[in-house]
Order: sequence, then C-alpha cells, then structure tokens
Amino acid sequence: VEVPATCQAAVLVEYGRPLEIREVPIPEVEPNAILIRVEMAGVCGTDVHLHQGAVGAPVILPVIPGHEGLGRIARLGQGRTHDAVGEPLRPGDRILWSHAWCGRCYWCDIAREPTLCRNATTYGLRQSEEQPFLTGSFAEYEYLVPNTRVVKVPEELSNEEVVGASCAFRTVVSAYDRLNRVGGVGTQDSVVILGAGPIGLYSTLLATEGGAGQTIVVGAPRARLELAREWGADHVINLDEVPDPSQRKAEVLKLTSGRGADVVVEAAGVLSAFGEGLEMVRPGGRYLEIGQTHGAATTPVAPAKIHDNLVVIGNKSATIVHFYKALHFIKNKRHRYAFGKMVSNTYPLTRVNEALASMKAGREIKAAIVP
Amino acid sequence: VEVPATCQAAVLVEYGRPLEIREVPIPEVEPNAILIRVEMAGVCGTDVHLHQGAVGAPVILPVIPGHEGLGRIARLGQGRTHDAVGEPLRPGDRILWSHAWCGRCYWCDIAREPTLCRNATTYGLRQSEEQPFLTGSFAEYEYLVPNTRVVKVPEELSNEEVVGASCAFRTVVSAYDRLNRVGGVGTQDSVVILGAGPIGLYSTLLATEGGAGQTIVVGAPRARLELAREWGADHVINLDEVPDPSQRKAEVLKLTSGRGADVVVEAAGVLSAFGEGLEMVRPGGRYLEIGQTHGAATTPVAPAKIHDNLVVIGNKSATIVHFYKALHFIKNKRHRYAFGKMVSNTYPLTRVNEALASMKAGREIKAAIVP
Amino acid sequence: VEVPATCQAAVLVEYGRPLEIREVPIPEVEPNAILIRVEMAGVCGTDVHLHQGAVGAPVILPVIPGHEGLGRIARLGQGRTHDAVGEPLRPGDRILWSHAWCGRCYWCDIAREPTLCRNATTYGLRQSEEQPFLTGSFAEYEYLVPNTRVVKVPEELSNEEVVGASCAFRTVVSAYDRLNRVGGVGTQDSVVILGAGPIGLYSTLLATEGGAGQTIVVGAPRARLELAREWGADHVINLDEVPDPSQRKAEVLKLTSGRGADVVVEAAGVLSAFGEGLEMVRPGGRYLEIGQTHGAATTPVAPAKIHDNLVVIGNKSATIVHFYKALHFIKNKRHRYAFGKMVSNTYPLTRVNEALASMKAGREIKAAIVP
Amino acid sequence: VEVPATCQAAVLVEYGRPLEIREVPIPEVEPNAILIRVEMAGVCGTDVHLHQGAVGAPVILPVIPGHEGLGRIARLGQGRTHDAVGEPLRPGDRILWSHAWCGRCYWCDIAREPTLCRNATTYGLRQSEEQPFLTGSFAEYEYLVPNTRVVKVPEELSNEEVVGASCAFRTVVSAYDRLNRVGGVGTQDSVVILGAGPIGLYSTLLATEGGAGQTIVVGAPRARLELAREWGADHVINLDEVPDPSQRKAEVLKLTSGRGADVVVEAAGVLSAFGEGLEMVRPGGRYLEIGQTHGAATTPVAPAKIHDNLVVIGNKSATIVHFYKALHFIKNKRHRYAFGKMVSNTYPLTRVNEALASMKAGREIKAAIVP
Repeated sequence: VEVPATCQAAVLVEYGRPLEIREVPIPEVEPNAILIRVEMAGVCGTDVHLHQGAVGAPVILPVIPGHEGLGRIARLGQGRTHDAVGEPLRPGDRILWSHAWCGRCYWCDIAREPTLCRNATTYGLRQSEEQPFLTGSFAEYEYLVPNTRVVKVPEELSNEEVVGASCAFRTVVSAYDRLNRVGGVGTQDSVVILGAGPIGLYSTLLATEGGAGQTIVVGAPRARLELAREWGADHVINLDEVPDPSQRKAEVLKLTSGRGADVVVEAAGVLSAFGEGLEMVRPGGRYLEIGQTHGAATTPVAPAKIHDNLVVIGNKSATIVHFYKALHFIKNKRHRYAFGKMVSNTYPLTRVNEALASMKAGREIKAAIVP
Repeated sequence: VEVPATCQAAVLVEYGRPLEIREVPIPEVEPNAILIRVEMAGVCGTDVHLHQGAVGAPVILPVIPGHEGLGRIARLGQGRTHDAVGEPLRPGDRILWSHAWCGRCYWCDIAREPTLCRNATTYGLRQSEEQPFLTGSFAEYEYLVPNTRVVKVPEELSNEEVVGASCAFRTVVSAYDRLNRVGGVGTQDSVVILGAGPIGLYSTLLATEGGAGQTIVVGAPRARLELAREWGADHVINLDEVPDPSQRKAEVLKLTSGRGADVVVEAAGVLSAFGEGLEMVRPGGRYLEIGQTHGAATTPVAPAKIHDNLVVIGNKSATIVHFYKALHFIKNKRHRYAFGKMVSNTYPLTRVNEALASMKAGREIKAAIVP
Repeated sequence: VEVPATCQAAVLVEYGRPLEIREVPIPEVEPNAILIRVEMAGVCGTDVHLHQGAVGAPVILPVIPGHEGLGRIARLGQGRTHDAVGEPLRPGDRILWSHAWCGRCYWCDIAREPTLCRNATTYGLRQSEEQPFLTGSFAEYEYLVPNTRVVKVPEELSNEEVVGASCAFRTVVSAYDRLNRVGGVGTQDSVVILGAGPIGLYSTLLATEGGAGQTIVVGAPRARLELAREWGADHVINLDEVPDPSQRKAEVLKLTSGRGADVVVEAAGVLSAFGEGLEMVRPGGRYLEIGQTHGAATTPVAPAKIHDNLVVIGNKSATIVHFYKALHFIKNKRHRYAFGKMVSNTYPLTRVNEALASMKAGREIKAAIVP
Repeated sequence: VEVPATCQAAVLVEYGRPLEIREVPIPEVEPNAILIRVEMAGVCGTDVHLHQGAVGAPVILPVIPGHEGLGRIARLGQGRTHDAVGEPLRPGDRILWSHAWCGRCYWCDIAREPTLCRNATTYGLRQSEEQPFLTGSFAEYEYLVPNTRVVKVPEELSNEEVVGASCAFRTVVSAYDRLNRVGGVGTQDSVVILGAGPIGLYSTLLATEGGAGQTIVVGAPRARLELAREWGADHVINLDEVPDPSQRKAEVLKLTSGRGADVVVEAAGVLSAFGEGLEMVRPGGRYLEIGQTHGAATTPVAPAKIHDNLVVIGNKSATIVHFYKALHFIKNKRHRYAFGKMVSNTYPLTRVNEALASMKAGREIKAAIVP
C-alpha cells in the first residue's frame, strides 16, 4: 500500500473555536506500531465536551480529536503479526483498537485494572508531548503506538454497524461483564436504563439479550427512544414528556409492583441521574454506573438506599476483550437488530464542525466522520 | 422454672420523656414461642434515637425498647425443641434471637432478603398492635413469637462478652459476608474503617482477622480508639484531633501510597461519612456500607468516584446465621481479644434513663442493662 | 367447590410392577395447607427410576409418584391467603408448588441452602410416615402441607406450556442463578449443553436468551435435538450419529477455535457425561453441573482440568423463586418459542403405565398425565 | 557491579542422572531485561519430578532447573527503571520475579488469564530454543527476559523467610484470591487442608489469618504437621498414622458436626486426594483445587458430591500481584510466625544433587540452594 508523506486532519487549536483542517506529517512506523487509513470515526459526546474545553483530563492543544476510530492497516510495524485473538494481521485488514495501557504499573499489574492506568496513550485525547500527534481519528491516517491492542473486524459488517463498538458498545460490554461478577441480570429481572444515547441504547440491547423480563428506558428525544424500542425496550419514559423526576419514579414503581427494578443501569451521564437511579432500584437490587465522569462534582444522594442491601458497581472504559465481544454480538445478532441505525448521519472530514454542532444540538443518534 | 404473672419493664410512653418502670403482664406461651428471662440488654445508638423520636420506622407508643437481648429460656412453647443449628433447647438455656421475619412474602421468598421483610416482628421496636407488648429487652422477661430464630450461647462465655453479638456484631458479620460475595478483604488489603462505635470496633476485628495488611480506624473518642488499637487497628485518626475531613483524607492517602485504601467500611452512621469514605477508597476498590440509616436524607456525593470501577455493597441487619458465627468468633478468639470490654458499664433496670443519658453523652463504649 | 371424600390415584406398590389405580381418602385441610385438584402431572425421568427402585432417596412404599404437579386450589387452609409473591389466593386459582423445606434446620437457616434440607416434605417421593399419603401428582387431588410455597400461574398460559416449570425448568433457572454468582454466561460466550432432555432443552433456552454467542447441544434422539434447534441451539451433536466421545470432543473443539467452550452445562445425567464435559470446557471457563444425582457412584475425572482456573458449580433442585421466574419467562417469551412442545403426549390417569413405558423407551420429549 | 563472563550452573543433561555443575556464559543484557545474582533458590517438588522426567510440559534438555529464585540485580537493561508496584529499581536491589507471560495472546488479552499463556518464558523449565539458557535459578546468575515482572523484597526479611514466596506462597495467595471471588473463607468457616507440603502449609496460614474458625490439616510427615500446628492448624491428621481414607473422612466429619467442612483446600497433589477432598466438604460448601497437575490422568470422582450445590474453583500458578501480597504478608506477620522454618536445610550449588535426594526422600520441609 502506498502511504503519502502527509495527510489531512481536523485539529482543535483552541477551545470553542472551529476545528481546522490541516496537513499533518505521517510518521515512520516503529516496531509493533501500526499505521491506519481511517475509514470512519464516530463523534462521541466526549468530543463535544472536548471542543468546549469541558473534559476533565489534561488534553494538550493542539489535538486531533476522535477516539471512535475504525480503519484499515496501511503499515504494520516490525514484529506486529497478530491481533489480540491470535488472528494474523495483514495490510488492508480492517481493525478496531483500544487505548494503549502501559502494562507495567501498579494499576495494570497489581490492581489488574488497566482502564485505570495513568500512563496510557489515549487516542483522540492526547495527554503527553511524547505521544505522536497523529493519534486521533478525525484524520485520514492514524498512528497506533506499539502497546495498542487491536482486533480484526469481520468483513461482512458495514462501518456503520461497527463504529459504535469502538467506544460506547465496548464500554457497555465491559460494564455488563462487571455486573456479571455480582449477579448480572438474573432470569426475568426488571431493568431500568437511564439514558437513550449510544451507551443507553447498547445497554438496552444487552439487557434484552441478557435475560431481562422487562426493560424500561428513560431518555430523550423521541428518535432515540424509538430505536430503544426496536432494540428491546418494553417501556420508554420520555424526559421531554415527563420532566418531573418524581413522576418518572412513580412510573417505574408502577411497572415494578411498587418495589423498583431489580437492576438499574445509569447510562445518562447527567450528574443528577445518579441519584434518580437510586430511587428506581429495589432494595437488594443491583445498580450499574456507567455514565458519571464528572470528576469531583457532587450531587445529593440518599445513602440509606445503598445501605438496604444494594450492590453498586462502576465501570470505566473497556479493554480489547470487550471490543472483541461487541463485534461478535453485532455479527451474531444482525439478523434481529439494525445496528447501522446507530449512525444517523455521516460527514466528510471537511464538515467535521457541522457534525459536532449537530451532535451538540441533539439532532443525531450518532454522527460519524468519513475522512 | 417458676414464672410470675407480671414483671418489671422500662416503658417509653412519650418521646423525650424518661422511660417509666411499669409492671407488665407476662403472656401465655403459644406453640413455638419462647419466654425469656432477660439477663442483659445492650443499649444501642438506635435506642437513644428512639428515645428522641428520631427513628424512621413507625414505632407504636408506649413501647418497651431493647433489641440487644440476651437471656435464659423460662418457658418453651409446644413444638419448639431445637435452635437454628439443630441443638436441643431446654428451659434454663441461654440464647440469642433475631428479629422474626415472616418467611412468606416477596422479600423473604422471592428476593431472598429476609432483613427487608415488611412483616417482621422487630424486638424493641414494636410496629404492630398485634405484636405482644412484652417484646423489648429492657424488661425482666421477654416474649419471643413463634417465627423467631434462636441460637444457644456457649456457657463459658460471659454476658459482657456476648451481648454485642445480638446487634452490632451480627450485623458486621452479615456485612462482611456480603463483602465476601464481591471479593471480600483480599490478602494484605488496606482497610479503612469509618467509625469507632460498636459497629466500627467489630468491623476492625473482622478486618484484622480476615486478612487485612493494614487497618486504619477513623473515629472518636479516645477510649474507643484505644480499644480499636487493641482489636487490631494499625493506625487511628481521632476526629477530635483532626476535625477537617480533607486532612483526614490526606492522612489516609499518605498511609496508602497516595492511592486510597483497597477497602473502606462505612460504620460511622453520620450522614456525611458516606461521601467521606468515597474519598478514601482507591479506584477499583470495594466499599462496604453499614451505617447509613437516614431514610430519604441526602448528602453530596461525587458519582465519578463510583464510576471508576468501584464496588459498593450495602448491608442491613443480619439473620440468625450471623449470630451463630459471631458467637463462634468470640469463643475461638477470646484468648486474643478482651471482648468483654465492649460493655463499659452495666445498669439495673431502674437506672435505664441514666444508661441512655450516658450513651447519648458519648461516655460509653456500650452501656448495658441488667434487669 | 365441592370436594369428594375420596379420589383416584396411581399407586406404586412394588418396584417394577405396574402402578395400581386406587381410591384414596382425601384428608381434611389443616391451617395453611392447600388441597389441589390436579390438572396435569409431568412424567419425569426420576419417575421412571422410582418405578424401577433406582432412586437413591429412601422412598416409602406404597407411594403416589408425581412431583411435576399443576393444579387448581380446591380448599385453602385457614390462614393461607397469599402466594409467595404476595398475590391473593382463592379457590379455583391455578398454582405451582415447591417441595416443603422445614425452614428451621442447619441447612435452611445457617447454610441457607433449603434444597439441602433433610426434613423436607417431598412431593411424589414420600419419605416419612408422617407425610400425608396424598402427596403425589399422579392423582386427582393432591394435599399440600402448610410449609409448601406456591405461586399462581398466569391464566393465559396452557397447562402444556407450564407443566415443565414445576420440575426441569425451575431447576435450570436455579442453576443459572448459581452460575450468575460466578460470572454467568458472559456476552457472546460459547456454551455447550450436554443432554437434550427437558433439563438440556431449558438450559438451551436460558443460554440463548442469556447472551450466548454460540450454543452447542450434545444429545439424542433426533426429535429432541430438533426442538433444541428451535429453542436456540446453533449446533447439535447427535449421540446416535457420533457415539465416540473423543469425536464429540473434537467437534466441540473445532467449533471453539480449538480451545473448548467458555461454559459447559452438564444436563445429561449419565454418569460419564461429567468427565466428558470437562474435556469440552476451555481452561479458565465455567462448568455448571445439574444432572448428576448418582449418590456415591464414581466416574473417572482428570482433576488437572479443574486445576487450570476452572470454576465448577453444582445445583440441586430449586426454591419457589425459580418457579416464579420460569413462569415469567414462559409468559414473556411465548411469542418466540413454542413452550407447549415440551409435552409430546398426554395420558389419562388410567394409562399412567403406558406413559412411564413410553418415557423409558425414549419415545417422548415429555409425557404428561391428565388425571 | 562487576559481572564475570561466565558463571557456575547446575545443569540437567539427562533425566534421572545427577545434575552437572558447568561453567555457562552470561549473556549481554538487552533493553528491559535484568541480570540477577542468585542468592537463594528453593527446591520444589516439581524439580524432583523434572529430574525424573515426570513433568508434563515439554522441557528442553539440557536445562538449568530452579524456578523459586531470589536474588539481587547485577545489571538492569535499558528502560527497566521500576518494579511492578512502581518502586524504582537499582543494581543491588533484591527482587522476586514471575514467569514472563507474552501479554499479547488470547489467554493474556481476551481470557485475561495470563497463567494460561502458551507463549510464556518459564524459569527453570525452559521450553523453547529461543529462550536464553541461563534462565534457571540453580546457578550463580540468572537472566530475566524483558517481559518478566518483578517486585522488590523488603530488606528486613531474610532469604529463608522469603524464598517460599517465589513459588508455593504466591500460588496459594492467587488461589485464595480466586476463592474470594466465590465467597472466600467466611467468618468462622471450618477449613480442611489436604497436604502439609509448602502449598499446604501456606494454605494453613491463609486460612488461619483469613477468618477460619477451625483448620484441619491432613498430611505427613510429623515435622511438617508440627509446623502446620505452629502456623494455625487446630487439628492435624497424620497420613502415616491414619492410612485409611475412610477413617480420615470419619475424623473430619466428627470435627464438623457430621456435615463436612465449609471449605476444603486440595494442596496435596496426589491424584487420589482430589476425590478424598470431595468426601470431606459439606454440601453447598467450597472446594479450592491447587495441587492437581497430572494432565490427562484420571481418578474416580462422585459427581453427585459436586451436584449438591458445591462450588469448585481451580488455580494455576500466580501473577506478580501475588508475589507482592505474599511479601507483605511475611513482612506484616513475621512477629507471629517463624516463616524461615519453611527452609529446613540449605545447600551450596555443588551439593544440589544431595538437596534433590533429600527432598525426594521426604526429609525436608523445603531444601534451598545457595549458589
């Protein structure tokens, strides 16, 4: 494959200002690294926050955003011969990749929680001057450092079906895996999902296909709730129609014999959703926390809700195994669900600012860039 | 055994007023019920709250308080032949007893969480007119309804050593059993205990004897912290000396390589302690919530702390198995720990108001009534 | 409802001899007991073994077999007002019931494993002279002792759809609940089910609807494997066509990248199946043992298979919560699965011996008696 | 530090023949690798088996045995600056090291079970021609490949106290961590340990310090059982005095109210011990399998024992976190236990064959080489 010396990339130079399309040099590929020709890059809510300077982590400007990448191998570094599952890698293969945990620190080796690694190379959120610049997916090419784990994408799947697996879906798979350690979704459990964005929608799928007897999705707007219904929600509660949290709680209690749901999944991300979910879970139930990434910001919580035999389990991000499982889910269930509906619109790289604006305005299920 | 027609009992007639010593009729013993000659009744923090009308549950006045009873069998109802372990019961045997869950409702049979039963007969906290009046331990005799589970107390143990097992200790055993479902205290884990009351002190014991590498107790006053040290605390942080929560957090971080403890046990009960504990646990750690019984009252919490791969597990009360295990712990470890130090003073029934006042003033580790 | 003084029942008088149809007195209904007009009674493999005297437990002859009962309330004992979920009970209601654990022994109260209770009243397998005679389902009426837990059956479900929930299905629900304690079926896990009888078929359903990516059923005969396919099996291995265990293992390895399945469910019951399953699970996987009830009988096992990070979890029987969940599963998924196919033939009480013979000959998926 | 060009090593040239002391070249230290000056090397039962050609794995001859190494850093490869906990590494530091998992395969990244990695560099058991020859601890120097994880040893600990942490103890810590996932040792549980070798002795310690109410050790010879008593065993059953397994079972049942132990730990390694342990655990209990490494060899097992609600969990080897925890255990509990008693005799490298013979003859608790 012929690789040019430079490529186009959308660069965030200053918070709040439009991204600029720049010509960026493509680095040499060191051993075990990979150079990717990006085929699609999902736009995440985090990208909207990043654009506004509202991401907690200390990102270095200028930066190329985009951490939901999907692309084909342009160059394979020496020694990089297989993906995480053991499948051989060749130029032209389409792959997904995770953040690159260091694998050598307390968090990776002792706590065995790589998603908590402080030394990771994080794509689309460059946090160190040593990290190559071309490590965001809003670009024609992207550089994967040697530590990056990757998995091949089955050829029969379209980019639209798959791109969500590179961020929201793999996170949800990881979260349900953690929930499984403490009982999971039991046979015929009632499940409330707070949030109807990509995290909420994939959570709905995993509840539906994981044994739930009743799935209730609380979110907005209508288009997302319609997709939630297609993906298995038995009931939806529209935030726009039921703006009062106590009324939403009342509806959930009515649907759950007055006791609350067996399982609540917080996938909304709004700070107040954490406490709202605690009002909706039954004593002795389980609560899966996926959405809250607000650092030290606080919200009022009634600890007695947790005291009553609750189990609350949090999940941050995902490792490569969850990408792998998400891809298999898509492959095995595509006869039943239209996964491609996750991408409501695609934009060329030159219209990246439009894509961000449309996401910010809530007009998309998910926008995607096709560089 | 000769049983009189009436006995003395301390009766709470009106919130905030001194308890009155009254002569109360002793009921006939129906099948499977048991009549107890009370030997000792611990005074719990809940009794202080009850006296002030500050218990959430709808207690009926007048009421005989006391749910930490310990006594000998005066009368055995027909058909009541064995304790929960299968040991034969005879008049004169010294026993402990749990609240009497109904065993027939959604909470008992479907959720399998008997401590959440809404139909329980709760000793010392009478909540139904159908419940016999003589069901509190601040009395010479106490009536145990047929559903009540009981266990025999080994004769070599003194009342002072054992009385804590009828409330605080059995709750802590239950809580650690729940913690065990999600990983427990791992080999050499660091553990922070918030609170140095009976719940905190027994939590210190179970951490120490359960594999902790380092145990840090945060509480007051000095006398309780000294007992915490005797019962295994490697470090204590005195609330009276370090009144600033951010400074307490700093001390814990200093003791835990800047990361926070592997396990935090909230045994303080103060509303703000819940959020304080979240600041002290490391990402990916475990948080055991025992103390928060404040109903709908809220406190500020940073949900991102939970999001970072935390597991939080709550525990309400205990079932008879935990009384049994607490008794065995005392029996097996009494060569190492002076369990009797839990009772700092005993009072005859006629001085029950003094006992309550002394507990309220924080002058006791635990006061106990000897009726 | 009018209740006669006597009713017909099929009685096993001597092992190996045909059951006799006898006229049996109907007892008075004591408080909390229930008299049932039996509508359908499934014939279980255990009934075939019982008939041959090959059940380990010390059953008393003569006995009325049948522990898969389904019927309507003819008489409600005083005080028996609600089912286990809290729904009101009235004569005419159709219900399912569990064995009656004592709720008072070491196994019920301390180990909290009621299915291990040694004092249970076990329907269709009478083991004590004190147990009423009319406690088997191969009869027009059946007497449920006071301790028996019951749940109402939704009226829209047919007897054929439901009867399996009174034995095989509730056991499978219980088994998967136990599996959930140790990780469950993870997202897209591969699952091998050994056995295509009722236990195997319901296990296939729960794997399919519980998140499996690939389900492989090993069993016979063809009719059962066809139902397994309808109920979600991606692959079936017919014991009649592949009689060599090493060849079956090879097929499973071929389907699982040479590593073995993530989860194996032993639902065959044949003694050798236990070891065969261990050959089919990957190192670090999970193994759910449901079928082995052969007492002290041994089979060769390679313990190194377990040593390699395996988790093996056994399950005996079920409690009332699992009946409840099984019923909800049937109600919620009947648009997708033809649950009624579980009953391949029904027989009147007078033809009970034919039903047993047909089960023994392997001609049925499940036979059922309609008394 | 001055490093010579060659060093002495004990080399196994042919199975069954004495090891030869040879002069072996010391390789250059590549980036991230470490050269060790070995201070002590434990002799493991596996070394005895290796000497006899009875290890399942395909070891390449000639080989330098020894996988229980303990030594000081002679040379640090470029880029190797910290240990697994984040402590800085310097020449002269004393460290322990784990096998070197590849970190890139299905087992490391997808199954997340690195001890199952098929590409590991395994010290003392060289399995690939590409692995440097000087990778066994029966030598003056040892070469650690770049992937090897290491932890520093606190200076206050003696080699005799620590050497067991490099094999048996870290394995036991890993095993109890796995047991913790499924309930662990509950408060006051009864625990049977099968085996009184190093694995059994460390298992006794972790049971004692992990909350057991009663610990029973089954093993031999007398010297090891005496150490078991010092390390917490309440009862010992001497195989030499009670050679009949059914009598040993009877003794365990007598000590556990006729029900069997709550937890059984199989640490004997003898094939028949697996089934013997199943006879000693109570229904609904937990069974931890550490000792069985006999590949496809089978032993008779009664699967009904597992069916009765048992949880069996296996453990193979350990990762670096378990070395770290084992070291902390030793550091924190050395005032209570004489850990140095694990090493019953030390031998210079030239007497390595004597050490092997003494281990084989059962005259040692553990022999150690001081090269």
